[in-house]
Amino acid sequence: MTVTLKDVANRAGVSTSAVSRTFTDGASVSVKMRQKVRKAANELGYSPNFLARSLTTRRTKLIGLVSNNFHNPIFLEVFDLFTRSLQDRGLRPLLVNLSNETDPENSVRMLRQYSVDGVIVASSTLPPAFSKAFRDKMIPVVNTFGRHSSNPEVHVVGIDNIEAGRMAARELVARGYKSIAFLGGPEAATSTQDRLQGFREGLAAYPDIELRHSFAAAYSFKAGRVEMLRLSESGLAEAYFCGDDVLSIGVLSALKDMNKQVPQEVGIIGLNNMEMAGWENIALTTIAQPIKQIIASSVELMVAMLDEPDRYPEARLFPCQVVERETLRPRV
Amino acid sequence: MTVTLKDVANRAGVSTSAVSRTFTDGASVSVKMRQKVRKAANELGYSPNFLARSLTTRRTKLIGLVSNNFHNPIFLEVFDLFTRSLQDRGLRPLLVNLSNETDPENSVRMLRQYSVDGVIVASSTLPPAFSKAFRDKMIPVVNTFGRHSSNPEVHVVGIDNIEAGRMAARELVARGYKSIAFLGGPEAATSTQDRLQGFREGLAAYPDIELRHSFAAAYSFKAGRVEMLRLSESGLAEAYFCGDDVLSIGVLSALKDMNKQVPQEVGIIGLNNMEMAGWENIALTTIAQPIKQIIASSVELMVAMLDEPDRYPEARLFPCQVVERETLRPRV
Repeated sequence: MTVTLKDVANRAGVSTSAVSRTFTDGASVSVKMRQKVRKAANELGYSPNFLARSLTTRRTKLIGLVSNNFHNPIFLEVFDLFTRSLQDRGLRPLLVNLSNETDPENSVRMLRQYSVDGVIVASSTLPPAFSKAFRDKMIPVVNTFGRHSSNPEVHVVGIDNIEAGRMAARELVARGYKSIAFLGGPEAATSTQDRLQGFREGLAAYPDIELRHSFAAAYSFKAGRVEMLRLSESGLAEAYFCGDDVLSIGVLSALKDMNKQVPQEVGIIGLNNMEMAGWENIALTTIAQPIKQIIASSVELMVAMLDEPDRYPEARLFPCQVVERETLRPRV
Repeated sequence: MTVTLKDVANRAGVSTSAVSRTFTDGASVSVKMRQKVRKAANELGYSPNFLARSLTTRRTKLIGLVSNNFHNPIFLEVFDLFTRSLQDRGLRPLLVNLSNETDPENSVRMLRQYSVDGVIVASSTLPPAFSKAFRDKMIPVVNTFGRHSSNPEVHVVGIDNIEAGRMAARELVARGYKSIAFLGGPEAATSTQDRLQGFREGLAAYPDIELRHSFAAAYSFKAGRVEMLRLSESGLAEAYFCGDDVLSIGVLSALKDMNKQVPQEVGIIGLNNMEMAGWENIALTTIAQPIKQIIASSVELMVAMLDEPDRYPEARLFPCQVVERETLRPRV
């Protein structure tokens, strides 16, 4: 037996319109009326049907949360933070897994079927056109971990990946490494492209330092391990800046197979500072992304866009910092 | 500009009812009519609004996916498999994070607001009353990783945790350990209670084997590590059956701190066989849960319940098996 708006109105002795206004954000209703209605609603166990209501308010409070990498443990933290942050604001995440699907049209169609209020694309590996496809259909979109540009087409929240690459270069230079390599994520990922660009820039003033680079097939343990085993055939660099932490852990595993001591023989620096990087038996030196702030800000921006859908696109960038653990030798 | 049912009907030169039937699963419509309608719909970029339609079909195709542990990496695999399996059937997961919330009434109310067609509770640590609260409100519910009983009140899909405990005992006996301990997850988790019970049963016939047990505060790396460091103060057992894999990895980390060699000085067996257990620098011997099968079966059962909501509750249990890697000494 579903309790209806009318039941609540009858019990409270008020109009159905008063009940409706009580449960509509921002609608005008007196404090006394609101108390009367809430009391009756509680007694009857009434809760408004968001979806029925969405047909008049045009708000479902559903937010599409799109990801395409379920092999990178950082995404468990990302989902944790996003779901809690959205829940705290009365929004709900509709989780979309694009591991086997990158056709934007298909995703747009699917999320429109659910009349989501907005879409958060949490990925640095989906092409920028992916996020843009939502904007083109007038669906508010934030690309968390996306690439910023001086002429942004969608809202982006994350870090300046070029600056993060420079930071990695400074750190390796400061520790006196002379032969250095970038072991990136997938070559098509904007995050990997930008980290490499910054890394190169940071090393440009040091012509005596040898710089190599290569790309792993994905941001995953296995891809990092496979790429490092391949690289070992042609001799190793003294230190590697890996595209992210999970790649770094795959690389550490390959080095263990080769009986190479870290950091004595080979140095590793990652990027993200995911929970596992701090596990004492991993103890990865890495560049921390402030993901709590990034995600809080993404949700804030999404909430702002719900009231102002044609808000001018902005890039919100957060500074990184090096977290020193045990995989680089000391500064010289 | 939203394309409506009426626009499609006009373009196809058919009735709106014909368009509606074309997009309703199981509704009667001729092949020729369906083709005409689909052609017009494609030309106009029409996609049905599931939520508006749900008011008449009473189906939203939304499934609540409830979890409360975002610090256990196995949940990334669980979310991956659930989202893909639900998507393949045209269903969509509404992710609910109960890390800081275990009030069943609150969750029930929230998921009813979204008129979810059903709820999958993916947890072995939420109390059985939690899943039951959905059933009591006539919402189809499956408790994946839940406790089965001879008199089930809700559908349960998972493993027989008591048998898994017995399996761990057999394995440690076969390797000649004489001093054995269970380092469980939270004491209130049915999975930990049942694994301990089976473990005790499996060792009952060996009075010469010393058995201890204790509990970690959560299924997490940190909880496993903290508990093992605490245990080290009073002397270690020869082998530990840990409540799950992530606890095991925390335990391995603590043993590394103590300079204890695994498996030469201390043996460890986990449970789950999550992706990370197979990472070559972890190489955890563990008891594998067939999580692909468990999740596929959970979704199958949910789909069946959508057509038959008062289906008699069943327990679907899948066999485990030992996956041997490098953390137990050889069989004697």
